[in-house]
Amino acid sequence: MEREPLLMLPGPVPVPERVRLAMARQAINHRGKEFGEVYADCVRILKQVFGTGNELFVISGSGTAAMEAAVANFGKDKKIACLVNGKFGERLYKISQRYGDATAIESQWGTPLSLESLEAALEDGAGVVTLVHNETSAGIKNPAKEVGRLARKYDALFLMDGITSIGGDEVKADDWCADCAIVGSQKCLAAPAGLSAISVSEHAWERISKTRPFYLDLMSYRKNAQNTPMETPYTPAVPLFLALREACLIIEEEGIEKRIERHKRLSLSVRSAAVAWGLSLFPTIDSTHTYSNTVTAVNVPEGVKDSEFKGIVKKMGIEIAGGQDHLKGKIFRIGTMGAVNAPEVLATLAAVGHALKKSGFEIKGDGVEAACEVLS
Amino acid sequence: MEREPLLMLPGPVPVPERVRLAMARQAINHRGKEFGEVYADCVRILKQVFGTGNELFVISGSGTAAMEAAVANFGKDKKIACLVNGKFGERLYKISQRYGDATAIESQWGTPLSLESLEAALEDGAGVVTLVHNETSAGIKNPAKEVGRLARKYDALFLMDGITSIGGDEVKADDWCADCAIVGSQKCLAAPAGLSAISVSEHAWERISKTRPFYLDLMSYRKNAQNTPMETPYTPAVPLFLALREACLIIEEEGIEKRIERHKRLSLSVRSAAVAWGLSLFPTIDSTHTYSNTVTAVNVPEGVKDSEFKGIVKKMGIEIAGGQDHLKGKIFRIGTMGAVNAPEVLATLAAVGHALKKSGFEIKGDGVEAACEVLS
Repeated sequence: MEREPLLMLPGPVPVPERVRLAMARQAINHRGKEFGEVYADCVRILKQVFGTGNELFVISGSGTAAMEAAVANFGKDKKIACLVNGKFGERLYKISQRYGDATAIESQWGTPLSLESLEAALEDGAGVVTLVHNETSAGIKNPAKEVGRLARKYDALFLMDGITSIGGDEVKADDWCADCAIVGSQKCLAAPAGLSAISVSEHAWERISKTRPFYLDLMSYRKNAQNTPMETPYTPAVPLFLALREACLIIEEEGIEKRIERHKRLSLSVRSAAVAWGLSLFPTIDSTHTYSNTVTAVNVPEGVKDSEFKGIVKKMGIEIAGGQDHLKGKIFRIGTMGAVNAPEVLATLAAVGHALKKSGFEIKGDGVEAACEVLS
Repeated sequence: MEREPLLMLPGPVPVPERVRLAMARQAINHRGKEFGEVYADCVRILKQVFGTGNELFVISGSGTAAMEAAVANFGKDKKIACLVNGKFGERLYKISQRYGDATAIESQWGTPLSLESLEAALEDGAGVVTLVHNETSAGIKNPAKEVGRLARKYDALFLMDGITSIGGDEVKADDWCADCAIVGSQKCLAAPAGLSAISVSEHAWERISKTRPFYLDLMSYRKNAQNTPMETPYTPAVPLFLALREACLIIEEEGIEKRIERHKRLSLSVRSAAVAWGLSLFPTIDSTHTYSNTVTAVNVPEGVKDSEFKGIVKKMGIEIAGGQDHLKGKIFRIGTMGAVNAPEVLATLAAVGHALKKSGFEIKGDGVEAACEVLS
C-alpha cells in the first residue's frame, strides 16, 4: 500500500500511531467498568482543555452533530443571533434556522464581525448567540471572549463552536461565558474523525427546551453520565473513544500551555513564509480579530491555477486545502493542527514554495528560510 | 493487559482482527477518492445484505441515530403505528412520539404482536408503521414480511429496524416492502460500534418531510452520496468506515446464505442446550413469530441469582447479557451474532452449564452435548 499523504488540512490531521493502535484491540462492552473509565478520562482531560468546570459529554458524531445538539437543546423556538464570517458560521446559522427564530449577523468571509450589530440584536431580544471561534474557512480567529461577555450582559446563552481551536489555541470556556463549547476529535486533539465533545453550563441547563431530539438529547447524556460506570445513552463509537482517550493523554503529557505555544509557533511560521514569498494573507484582522493559530489562509496569487498548484504539492505526498464555496480557487489553506511539528511544516512549505514557482509565481523571498527563523 | 472478555452479547460482538487492524492506519481525507471507494464498497455489499435495490447510506452514529433518521425524515407530523413487544420497539415508539402522532400497538415483551390491531390502526389512517424485526430484549423474531405487506396494502410507509437481524438472518427489505431498513455495525456485521446504515425507498422519498433535522437529514446524505467521489454530508467516522468495509468484504467472502445458515445453527445449538438443561426459553412464539436466530433469551430458573450466575461466567472470561428493564434478573441472553462460531458457543455453553450448577440449579441433561449434536 502506498503511504497515506501527509494531511496538512484544517482537519482531518495526522493521528499519532499510539492513538491509532488504541483502536485495534478487541471490542469491549460499552456498559462496563472499563469503558466508563475511558469516557471519564476523556471528560477529565477535555474539561481542562476547554477551560471549564461545567459538565462535558462526548458525542458519537461529528462537530456538526454537537453544533446541532447545542442549538436543538438550548435554542429551540428562541431568538438566535448567529455571527457569520465564514462557512461554519453559516452552518450554525442554517442549523439555527431549523430550530429557532434565527438572524445572521454577517460580515464577509474572513472579515471582522460587528459587535455593535450583535449588541443591537441582543437589545432586540435575542436569547441565544452562536459564534465560530476559529473560522477555518477563512483563517480568522473571532473574539469569543468579547462575544461571550456581551451575551452574558444581556442574559443570553452563548453557544461557542471551538471545533478547530480547542486543544490548539487558548480557550477559556468559563471565563468567556460559553454556555456550550464544542470541539471535534479530528482537529487540534489529533484523534480520528467521528467524535465531538460539548460542555454545558448550569445557565444552559436551566433553559433547556422541553422538546428535544432523541439521539442528541443532552438530558439523556447527562443522566447516563451520572451512572456508575459512566455511560452514554446509546451505543458509543467505542474504538474512537479509546483513541480519544489516548489523544487526551498525549495532550496531558505535552501540557496544554506548551501545546498552544507550539500551535502558535507553527502557524506563525507558515504566515512568515507566505509573506516572505510575497503572498498576501486572506483574512482582514483588527484589534479583536486575529489570524487563526491553527490554519493559515493565503490568497492564491494572480496567474496561479489553484488546482494545478495543489496538485504539485500532492504529488510530493502532501495535502493542503483549497477554498470552500465562493472562495474555491481564490485561497489555499494550510492546517497546523494537532500533533504536527516543525518537520511536517517545513516539508509542506518546501513543497508549496516549489509548487508556487512551477505554477508561474515569481517568488519574492525565501519562505522556507523565514519559517526556519520562527521554528529554530 | 488482560485479555478482553469474549462478548457473547446481542452486540457488541467480537470483531475479527482483519477488521480491527483496518482502523490502525493513518488518517485519510474523507473528501478524497479513496474514502469514496470505501463508502461505495460498504453500500454495494450492504444492499445485498439488506436485500434492497434502494438507496442506502451509512450514518456516523449508532442504530438509534438511524432509527431517529427514519422517523424524523419520514414520520414527522404523521400518524405512526408502533409495534412494541420489547425494549427496542419501545424506543422506536418513544422516538416516534417526538416527531409524530404515535400510537403503540403493544404486546407483552417477547409475546406475539397483534396484526389485527395493526390493521385497525391502518384503517384508522396510520401513515407510518414501525417494527423491530429481531427484538433482542426478548429473543423474539417478529413477522416483518407480514407487517410490511399490510402497511403497503394501506399505502403506509414501513420503517423496519433490522439492527440485529441484517447480516445474520434472512432479510428481504424490498420483498417485505420496507421503505426504510436499518442495521447497526456492531451486531451481525461484526464491525465495531459506532455506525449504522439505512435504506430508503422511492416511496419514502416521495413523502419526505419538509422540515428535517440537520445531522440526520437524509436529503443531505442523498445529495452527497451522488458526488464524485461519493461523500457523506458531514465528517464521517473514517476509521469505522474502513472497518465496516473490511467486515462487509468478509460477509461477501463467506456468502450471505452461508452466513445466515451459520447464525441459525448457532442459535439452535444454544436453544437446544437450554432445553436439555431443563430451562425454559423466554419468548412465546406462534406461527408467525419465531425464536430469534441471533440471540437466545432464557428464563433464569427459580432459586438462581442472575448476577451471581453471570458473575461466574464472567470469571471464565465470557460476557453474556442479562434482562433489560423489568426483565432484569428474570432472563439471561446469549448472543450468537457476527463472526463467532462453534468454538465460542461451546466455550460459552460449558461456562453457563457450570455456572448454573454452581448457582444451585439442578441440571436435567447435558446441554453442551445437545449443542454439539447441532454443531457437528
